[in-house]
Amino acid sequence: MINEICSVIEKIRNQKPLIHHLTNYVTANDSANITLAIGASPVMASEILEVEEMAAHASALVINIGTLNAPTVEAMIVAGKKAQSLGIPIIFDPVGVGATSYRTAVAERIIREVKPTIIRGNMSEIKLLSGISAAIKGVDSVADETNGENIAIKLSQKLNCVIAVTGKTDIIVDGNKVCRIDNGDIMLTNVTGTGCMSSSLVGSCAAVANPFVGAVTGIAMMGIAGELASSGLKPDEGIGSFRIRLFDAIYNLSGEILRDKIRLS
Amino acid sequence: MINEICSVIEKIRNQKPLIHHLTNYVTANDSANITLAIGASPVMASEILEVEEMAAHASALVINIGTLNAPTVEAMIVAGKKAQSLGIPIIFDPVGVGATSYRTAVAERIIREVKPTIIRGNMSEIKLLSGISAAIKGVDSVADETNGENIAIKLSQKLNCVIAVTGKTDIIVDGNKVCRIDNGDIMLTNVTGTGCMSSSLVGSCAAVANPFVGAVTGIAMMGIAGELASSGLKPDEGIGSFRIRLFDAIYNLSGEILRDKIRLS
Amino acid sequence: MINEICSVIEKIRNQKPLIHHLTNYVTANDSANITLAIGASPVMASEILEVEEMAAHASALVINIGTLNAPTVEAMIVAGKKAQSLGIPIIFDPVGVGATSYRTAVAERIIREVKPTIIRGNMSEIKLLSGISAAIKGVDSVADETNGENIAIKLSQKLNCVIAVTGKTDIIVDGNKVCRIDNGDIMLTNVTGTGCMSSSLVGSCAAVANPFVGAVTGIAMMGIAGELASSGLKPDEGIGSFRIRLFDAIYNLSGEILRDKIRLS
Repeated sequence: MINEICSVIEKIRNQKPLIHHLTNYVTANDSANITLAIGASPVMASEILEVEEMAAHASALVINIGTLNAPTVEAMIVAGKKAQSLGIPIIFDPVGVGATSYRTAVAERIIREVKPTIIRGNMSEIKLLSGISAAIKGVDSVADETNGENIAIKLSQKLNCVIAVTGKTDIIVDGNKVCRIDNGDIMLTNVTGTGCMSSSLVGSCAAVANPFVGAVTGIAMMGIAGELASSGLKPDEGIGSFRIRLFDAIYNLSGEILRDKIRLS
Repeated sequence: MINEICSVIEKIRNQKPLIHHLTNYVTANDSANITLAIGASPVMASEILEVEEMAAHASALVINIGTLNAPTVEAMIVAGKKAQSLGIPIIFDPVGVGATSYRTAVAERIIREVKPTIIRGNMSEIKLLSGISAAIKGVDSVADETNGENIAIKLSQKLNCVIAVTGKTDIIVDGNKVCRIDNGDIMLTNVTGTGCMSSSLVGSCAAVANPFVGAVTGIAMMGIAGELASSGLKPDEGIGSFRIRLFDAIYNLSGEILRDKIRLS
Repeated sequence: MINEICSVIEKIRNQKPLIHHLTNYVTANDSANITLAIGASPVMASEILEVEEMAAHASALVINIGTLNAPTVEAMIVAGKKAQSLGIPIIFDPVGVGATSYRTAVAERIIREVKPTIIRGNMSEIKLLSGISAAIKGVDSVADETNGENIAIKLSQKLNCVIAVTGKTDIIVDGNKVCRIDNGDIMLTNVTGTGCMSSSLVGSCAAVANPFVGAVTGIAMMGIAGELASSGLKPDEGIGSFRIRLFDAIYNLSGEILRDKIRLS
């Protein structure tokens, strides 16, 4: 699989796939810039009157419910069904699912009606989706990862989609295939939008590779970028500088760096 | 009070309070990152179908009308009433009040129906709220501060809430208690969102301290971060680099730095 | 014209014109910060109940359809008509026009009902507006620029407005006056929002100069800032650092730097 993973970046840079996002207003700028940094082309469009047509142009669709609102939820459903009907990979980021009953109902509806290709979330979110009550505090994961892998495997099989769980160790599951990634840095949890940006990277990768390889590659990219961004940090620097270096690291990423740094198990 | 102020950061970092924001789409990312930088946990949610439940989870609620729109105003009222009923501190940032009659009417309605714990604004905004006509130009203060302190005292007593006025000298008032802060840097006025971020810091502090101490601490944090960010700036650097250093400075802030740098009168 | 161009920055910094934006949630923060960096005062307000009053306070109005939605389109029309009736310059940025039929219909409606003073777009967008079918892929230009100048001239004459086309060579047209700008850097295409920020700069300049000089100056500013930002970039830096330096460069721009760097033909 490592050869496939390392060839993804070059494919993205050659094909410049269009990644249609229906996402939140907090991290939309970060998602757009990380998509550009990896070499893909972002478009954010969420008006229901145009999302079907926009999704049809795209090579991947990213649906993120970070700051969901009722009209945009309808647009997500419409865009998602269109992408599904055309075989365009759909990445669903169930931000904060479980924090409110409305958010949970929306996530369940998107899963049921849109049938995402890949779901990327933290362990609390994935556990919630598995019907296991998890303490979700805001949008950050507080769940321990005991049995996390089994939960992801069962959810993947139940929904027939790739499950990508990000955390200290990332777990990517496609049915009975499992890949663990041990890259990353604690600083990634101190910045808003690193989850959303991971979903954008997964979308960019899934646009040029199969969903399992795409999810593994996108998640590994963010972990490695976190390590690179953190390594050069001076004592008086913090999340401001770290964020900037994260974009720099993704921009300068190559198949060779990926091959050198990736830690799969 | 200085000991109380200096213990706030450690409390935030231990408790990681959830700060629910209903805010604008211009600076939402900055508010989320500054909240993370100080050690609290931000959540932005503004759909009326979920804000009551989200606010109930929070340790503080920040309401900011920077880019208000009619549906979100209703969500602000609902979230605010819920927080009020649960005794959760509410920080209201009346961005640009007075610039349009709609904005003024919304600010007055929020004050009347939500009863904020703390109102943070510039002197033009606070004067406007005091029924004193002030020339508000966009969202930036152009008012002089003559009698500003008296205006803040009267408004605090009238509304029975803490008034935090940011400017060259910041003035924080709780009834007849007054605290002046002489920290800050002119560069803070050259960057969008420093006011909004101050409100997020005040929210983070008020989640772990009483409203007066919380307001003083949050405002002082931003002033000191502004000084630290400005001090290292090279000749070819400007607001881009300053913004990044602002996040770095808040991330690296400690009770000791606060004690060393704070200038109260 | 060069003397007029070089005097624009000082006028902006003296007059601090208020630039009212109705723009997208992806790059609103960037637009606000670039407006501040050049010395003008941004305000973002898009609720239909207040935009007429806000536009009336402004020295320029920027309408950007990046993430248009139906209620905001109505607000754009109302704000635009008000600005038009008061002689306030209106900059229209038809982001992604042609990508969907809804977006095209909205752009045509804005042009018909608002009568913009300046339209700034890439060549695909300008060609589309000229009724020439162009392959628009997302919001990035893929059109070649053959005959681009003639298209811009005809569109300017047809709509009786300034057309500013950004690309490898920027083309600014006012009826039969044409100005080409050869500043810029390829990195500007790797960052989201550089087009939107150009429109904000054009708005800031048109607030203090005639539309043609304003458009030339604003576009040249972004090109020169791109060159300055790119020139200092280290090997491990990328779009993260480039973006920050872009804001720094605009902040430090002067009439002298403009005079020294600008390449008109």
